[in-house]
This record gives sequence, structure tokens and C-alpha cells, in this order.
Amino acid sequence: MYLRNAWYVAAMAHEVGRTPLARLIAETPIVLYRTEAGGAVALHDLCIHRKAPLSLGRVAGDAIVCGYHGFTYDGTGACIRIPGQDHIPARARVRAYPVVERWGWLWLWLGDPAAADAALIPGFDWLDLPGWVANTGHLHLATHYQLAVDNLLDLSHETFLHARTIGNAAVAEAPITTHEADGIVHVRRIMKDVPPPPLFVKTTGSSANIDRYQLIEYLAPCYVRLEVRGLPVGSNDPNSGLRWWVLNALAPETARTTNYYWGLSRNFAIEDTAMTAALQKAVELTFSEDVAMLEAQQAAIERDAGRTRQIDARLDGGTVLARKRLAALIAAEARA
Amino acid sequence: MYLRNAWYVAAMAHEVGRTPLARLIAETPIVLYRTEAGGAVALHDLCIHRKAPLSLGRVAGDAIVCGYHGFTYDGTGACIRIPGQDHIPARARVRAYPVVERWGWLWLWLGDPAAADAALIPGFDWLDLPGWVANTGHLHLATHYQLAVDNLLDLSHETFLHARTIGNAAVAEAPITTHEADGIVHVRRIMKDVPPPPLFVKTTGSSANIDRYQLIEYLAPCYVRLEVRGLPVGSNDPNSGLRWWVLNALAPETARTTNYYWGLSRNFAIEDTAMTAALQKAVELTFSEDVAMLEAQQAAIERDAGRTRQIDARLDGGTVLARKRLAALIAAEARA
Amino acid sequence: MYLRNAWYVAAMAHEVGRTPLARLIAETPIVLYRTEAGGAVALHDLCIHRKAPLSLGRVAGDAIVCGYHGFTYDGTGACIRIPGQDHIPARARVRAYPVVERWGWLWLWLGDPAAADAALIPGFDWLDLPGWVANTGHLHLATHYQLAVDNLLDLSHETFLHARTIGNAAVAEAPITTHEADGIVHVRRIMKDVPPPPLFVKTTGSSANIDRYQLIEYLAPCYVRLEVRGLPVGSNDPNSGLRWWVLNALAPETARTTNYYWGLSRNFAIEDTAMTAALQKAVELTFSEDVAMLEAQQAAIERDAGRTRQIDARLDGGTVLARKRLAALIAAEARA
Repeated sequence: MYLRNAWYVAAMAHEVGRTPLARLIAETPIVLYRTEAGGAVALHDLCIHRKAPLSLGRVAGDAIVCGYHGFTYDGTGACIRIPGQDHIPARARVRAYPVVERWGWLWLWLGDPAAADAALIPGFDWLDLPGWVANTGHLHLATHYQLAVDNLLDLSHETFLHARTIGNAAVAEAPITTHEADGIVHVRRIMKDVPPPPLFVKTTGSSANIDRYQLIEYLAPCYVRLEVRGLPVGSNDPNSGLRWWVLNALAPETARTTNYYWGLSRNFAIEDTAMTAALQKAVELTFSEDVAMLEAQQAAIERDAGRTRQIDARLDGGTVLARKRLAALIAAEARA
Repeated sequence: MYLRNAWYVAAMAHEVGRTPLARLIAETPIVLYRTEAGGAVALHDLCIHRKAPLSLGRVAGDAIVCGYHGFTYDGTGACIRIPGQDHIPARARVRAYPVVERWGWLWLWLGDPAAADAALIPGFDWLDLPGWVANTGHLHLATHYQLAVDNLLDLSHETFLHARTIGNAAVAEAPITTHEADGIVHVRRIMKDVPPPPLFVKTTGSSANIDRYQLIEYLAPCYVRLEVRGLPVGSNDPNSGLRWWVLNALAPETARTTNYYWGLSRNFAIEDTAMTAALQKAVELTFSEDVAMLEAQQAAIERDAGRTRQIDARLDGGTVLARKRLAALIAAEARA
Repeated sequence: MYLRNAWYVAAMAHEVGRTPLARLIAETPIVLYRTEAGGAVALHDLCIHRKAPLSLGRVAGDAIVCGYHGFTYDGTGACIRIPGQDHIPARARVRAYPVVERWGWLWLWLGDPAAADAALIPGFDWLDLPGWVANTGHLHLATHYQLAVDNLLDLSHETFLHARTIGNAAVAEAPITTHEADGIVHVRRIMKDVPPPPLFVKTTGSSANIDRYQLIEYLAPCYVRLEVRGLPVGSNDPNSGLRWWVLNALAPETARTTNYYWGLSRNFAIEDTAMTAALQKAVELTFSEDVAMLEAQQAAIERDAGRTRQIDARLDGGTVLARKRLAALIAAEARA
């Protein structure tokens, strides 16, 4: 059901410290903490003794002590103390998960540790690239993560759901192109000489028509990179107007819940903290509209229980390709 | 499980306007709205594109626009716009339900549209009959609708549950007569020369004994009409004392929830707005007692899970006949 | 799943009076009330008529009247009134449960009434023994009752969970002895010349080392008696220092919820009401720590759904013996 040999965002780096943090990733309970040296540790969040969550315990040195009966595990998951006895059985260990800290986020490899290759982490380097400044955030969604991925791959919804910020009439009727290359699904919508949406006007101070670009990349299982450009009409310089990347990680929690980590990174007015604050507000407003719709959609799908057939439209080209790619990867993993 | 070829109350007329309203009827999601001319439209509340609830969208002209990706449907359920393409597949439509506005309520036909005959709507005309004035209300019950129908067909419960308003000792021991005619189950309790219950005293100002009538009609699947009379002892004129009709529509929502629409219509002191206000309060108090009991009964039945047998009493004559009639209609529909 | 031929605590005596009280015991709904003479009655809390909970009714004389349609039952469960008819069928009765009031608690026999022998009630007489004074309390736990029994049989958790009151480092590493005799599982931990935990210091005013005893007895299905002693080092007189009994009844409600009745009885400073009040607070604080851990453990076990194996430690000797004994009793009852 979930792709196991994959990196999932487990937390934002600042969320994890010397107090254990519990997260559920693809129905797997994880406890996160940092060693004295600051390294991040991710263990299965279930004491092998009586299944108490280790996240209710405390960190001691580089180890974590179960808050119930004191079973203690080092950062590799090996049990190093069982109160009342000297012998510790070899099988007394919890699973440890490879975790990599990169660009301010913690990435966890859910599958076979031998296959964990940091080079497979999707490139989200705009989050801390010199010359760029990023807004970030973390939302909890009561929805399957694929519904949130679909949302980002079919931006025609901006017209109908986000008229207060990034949507206007220009978007929904503009054609898209889609293709897959090197395992990445690309969805592109280029709108020439169109009015800017409200958030662009607010950000740039100009309501003159623009050439608007939405260049989207889907990387399985749950990543969407979206390059947005609002350029002077006719300009070929991507840095000649508004430009930002929206970086999205949809970490599945259960079949009906998701942790959503997002970043919006821009390369203009990067010292302008008022703009940074305004963009934070605008993104949170926009995503709150998505949350309401996605959660209603999830509930409607559950209630429908497969009775109604759905219809794909031309603008679903990207979502269809992406779902096909993910299904193929999951099927291949099930065969292996 | 539900009778499909039947009218169900979908909403009170004043609840439906130019903003979409969601209702669940027999586990079927319905969106209700009005056209520019004021006509009521009822559609399946599930966009055929990605199953977003249409009720989160907006009404434009006589059509409804999905709030997610803009699929648009006319009042017949036909899709008339898919953003980004000109071709609209013939199968792109949501189901439309016949709906009739009558006596201030909206009646929806859940089954085969060809069989929708407005003449089959139960007669609730006292709701706006000249010379009568009606209180009305809408409650949500966490209970199967049959438990609420049972409640109305065995009014012996007034003695035990409603001693503050319509119950006193006279009711529970009084015999009933029951019969079925023309598909209507009749339950009648006539109590001669008995004390009036508190609400009658408050309404009429008199505590003298009365001849009290409870003339009940059950119309499948979920309608109960109750004519109440409190007449001077020995009077044969139904309009010589207190007289009102209690009109009840129990619209199934799920197997454990129900929308309850009620009216109480009287033909005396019809200009007396203070009396109208007092009756509204009295009915709401009385029904709140029913709600508490019915929801506890529903929970107890679920917990019991069929382990305990129940016993019918003589006063259950009406509920037994009504359940038999409904079961026969549902069985006949299943055979057809 | 539950041992049926067993006594379960149904309520504290002061909770039951002339207003019906509902309790769920081993998934069986029970209504409790007192007769005019003060005797406690326990009946199946489900009217045989339409399955309304009798606990929503009222007590009249020694009988209970259903609050819905007035079916009335005497203290043996026999129906003695059905409104509207004289004949009462012989099978019109609800099950009555033997109930014994002892030491301030009400004990209910869930199984075959013929086998109800008050001599099988576990000895909790310290609750009202002359020369002793008891604190008592009642908690509701969202956890299976066996997890709470386990908690009391492995007190090594005091070190990790209760460092603010009864835990310190001395407990967890001290060995235990376990044995079973006369159907009682004994778990003993004797710690010589150890520091007293915070609550002992607060209670006795002394922080001198003590000989600390934890003498635990498990009586199936759900009782734990715990004798605690904090004696001057080297003393053989159990009454020479701090001594109390913690008496625990874990009444199963459902597979994931439990009613927990507890007492703490001491034989020193028994007139000291300030100490009694302080102990009440300390126990409630301590048990609130257990509740948080037990409920997290229950949730983690449910989420794990048997995927992870657990490991028994040496200090689990008591919990393993107790679970074995209970399983044997339930299996024997299933065979019989």
C-alpha cells in the first residue's frame, strides 16, 4: 500500500531535540530525538517489553529510556539496559531507521536500510540556497496523501478554490503539457499575457499583465516541486519578475491522514521580512482552503465507498501519470 | 434497507436558497439549491470528476459550479462545463432527484424518477391550511428512524417521559384500537372524562376534565400524523376545545441517524403569537426528552447486538403493524 | 473472554442510592439502586420491552420503572407491571445479579447465580478495619484491565513513572520472588537499607534509609493487594514504621476500558486528616501518571495489531504467572 523503499519527511529539523517526538509514517510509529552531538535518531516507537511508546520516555546521553519500565535503547536500536537483570537477549532491539538532515528537514528511509541512498532524496535545495529565502510550514491533513498530491498536480483548482490569493480565471482554461522523464512527471502550464492573481499584485505592486509559468515536477512517492514565474510579458529571463519554488512533501500517516511539510522559496526581496511575513500568511490562508476541500473530498470518497465512477478530464494528465507511476513502483516492490 | 420509491422530506423550504445545502438522505448525499426563478434543485452531492461535494461549490445562474475544479452542472444534473476542454462526455452527469415544494417543506423522491408521483406525498396540508397556524421545527437524532416512528405510534410513553407537558397517568393505561386501511395504519386512543395534562391546562387555562383523543396515522415509510383533541366532556364537536395536528417526517440519514421535521398546527387562537411561542417551547422541551431516550435506546440496542429478546405489549399494536407494513414494502421493492 | 463466575466491583457503596446508576461490567449493562430498606439491587440494564436502559427510569418503592413506557421490575428482575394490560408473561423479566455490600464497595457476581458464594470475595477488609483508615477512589481507564493488573504486579515502573511520589532508583534493580499458592500469585520485593521515596519522606518526616517491602498478591480475575512497609533498617516489626495496604479492583468494562476502584489503608496517624488529604492527592497524582501511560500503551498495542513480538524480562515473573492463571480459569470455564 505504501512504497517502503523511499525517503519520507519525518519532521522539520527544529521540531526534534532532546525531548522525544512521536510521528506516524505510513502507519509506522517513529520516535525522533537528537544525540548529545546533535545527530538525529529515528527508532520504532514501541518498547519491545510491553509495547509502551518510547516517545513517552526520556533521552539520556545518546540513548532513550522507556518511561514505563526503563528498558533503554541506543541510537542503533539495541537494548542496552533491562532493569533487574544483566543478560540482554540479542533480539532485544527496536528497529532503527536511517535518517538524514538536509535543508532544514529530516528525511527518513522506511524500507531496507541497505538500500538507503541519500542521493535519492528529492532535491529541495532551494530551502536553504544562498540568494534565496524560504517560508516553511507543517500541516496535518485528514486525507489520503494522494489526494493532496493530486491537488498540486492539477492547479486548475486555483481558479475556483483560491480566488483570494493565487487563482483567477486565466488558470483553469489554460492548457497543460505533461510528460515523464527520468522517473519525474512534468506538468507545465504557460499562460502568456494574462492578468496576475491577487497575491502576485500584492507581492510585486503591479497589476500589469504577465507571462505566468507553472512548472510542476512530481517525484514518487509524495513530492511535488512547483516553479512559479510571473514575468513581464515577453521576457525570457526567469529572474526578471516574480519567481518562487513551492516545495511539497506529503508524508503519509495513515490511509486517511497525512503530514504536509511545505516550503516557498523566492530569490527576490530576500531581505524584506515584511514580505516574508505576508507570504507566510498568504500560503497559510491558501492551504487552509485546500485542507477544507481535501478533507471534505476524503469524507465523500469514504461515504461513496466506490459506488460512483469518476471521470478524468484533460487537465488530469499529470495526476493520471503520477498515480500510474506510483502504482507501478508499489507493484514492483510487492513483486520483489 | 431503505424504501427507495418514496418521498422523503429533504429540508424545510426556508433552509434552501442560492447557497448550496448538503443533506444526507438514506445514506445518499444530496445538494439542494434554488434556481434564479426560485425552483428547488436536488442533485447527487458528489462531483463526477474527483468526488468533491458539490455543496462546497457555488450556484451560478441555474447551475452549480464545483468549488474544486469548476465542473458545472445544470439543474438536470448534466455537466455543462469542464474547464480546459470543449468536449463534455455524455456520461458526465450527476443524478438529479425529483423534488416538490409543498406546505413549506421540500419533498424528494429517492427512487426511480419515472415513478415519482406527487400524489403520493403524504397529506400534511394543515401546515399551511387557512384557519390554522403551525409551529415547525427540525431536529437531528442519533437514532434509527424506526425507533422515532415507534415512539409516535405508542404514546403510552407520554405518561413516563413527558409528565412536564403532555403526559399524565390517564394515558398509559387507556386501551388503544388499531387497524390498517388503504395502506395507512391507524392507532386510536380515546380517553373519556380524564384530567388534562399540564400543557393542555396551560394552553386552555382550564383544568377541568376532558375527553382526550389521540388519533394516529402511520404512512410508510416514515410519516406519522397525529390528531389531538381535548374536548369538553361529552362534546361531539372536534372543534369545541383544544385541537391540533402533530405532523412528523422522520427522514432516515444513516442506520443510526435521522433528520426529524415536525409541525404542530392548531385551529384556535391562531392570532395569539404568545401561544405560538409557548407551544414552540413546549414542543422543543418535549422532543428533547424523546431525543435523550431515543439516543440511549439506540446505543443500548447496538451494545446488545441482538443478544436479548424483546417482548411486545398490547399497546405495541400500532408499532407492530407499522413495522410489518414497512418490511413488506421494502421486501416487495427488493423483489421488483 | 471474561471470567463469568467471579465477583466484580460494581460501584462504591456511596455511589448507589435511590437514583438508578448505570455501570457496564464485562460488556454487560447493569443498573444499580437501593430498596427502601437500603439493600442494593443489580439488574440487567435493558428493558425487555424496547431495550431502553432502565437506568433512565426511576425507583418506586423497591421496584424500578422504565422511563420510556413504564414496564416495572421488582428487585428480583420480575416484571410486575405492563401498562395497558393485566397479563404479564412469565418470561417478562430481566436478569438480576447477586450483589454483596462489603467494606464500602458493592460486589457483583456476573455468572451462574447458584455459584455465587460471598466467601469468594477477595479479602479487602483493611478498607474498614478498626485501627486503620482508608483513602479510596474510582477512576475510569481507557485500557484493557489486564494492562492495569500488569502495572501493579511489576512495580519496577515506580522508578521511571513515579519519581515524584513512590519511585526512586532503589526499586527497579531490586530482585523479586514469585510463587503461586492457594490460587494466589505472590510477588515480593524486599529492599534492605535503601533511601525512602519522596512520598515516604513526606509522610513520615524522615529521610533516613529504610527496609522497604512490596508484598503483592494477585487474585483472579482482577484483584491486586499490595502491602507496603517502610521500616527502620533492621526492624522485624511490620508496624514499626510506615505500613499501608493498597487494594485494587480492576473491573473490566469493555476490551479497551476499565473501572478502577482503589483503596489505601494505613494503621498509623489514623486521626491525622491532613495526612489523609495529602495521601489522597499523592495517590491521585501517581495514578494519573499510570493512566497516561496505560492509555498510550493500549493505543500502541491496538495500532501494532500483533505485528511486533514482545519480550518478557526477569521482573515480569509475577505478570506472567498471573496471566497464566487467569487464562487457565477462563479456559476451564469455557470447557465447562
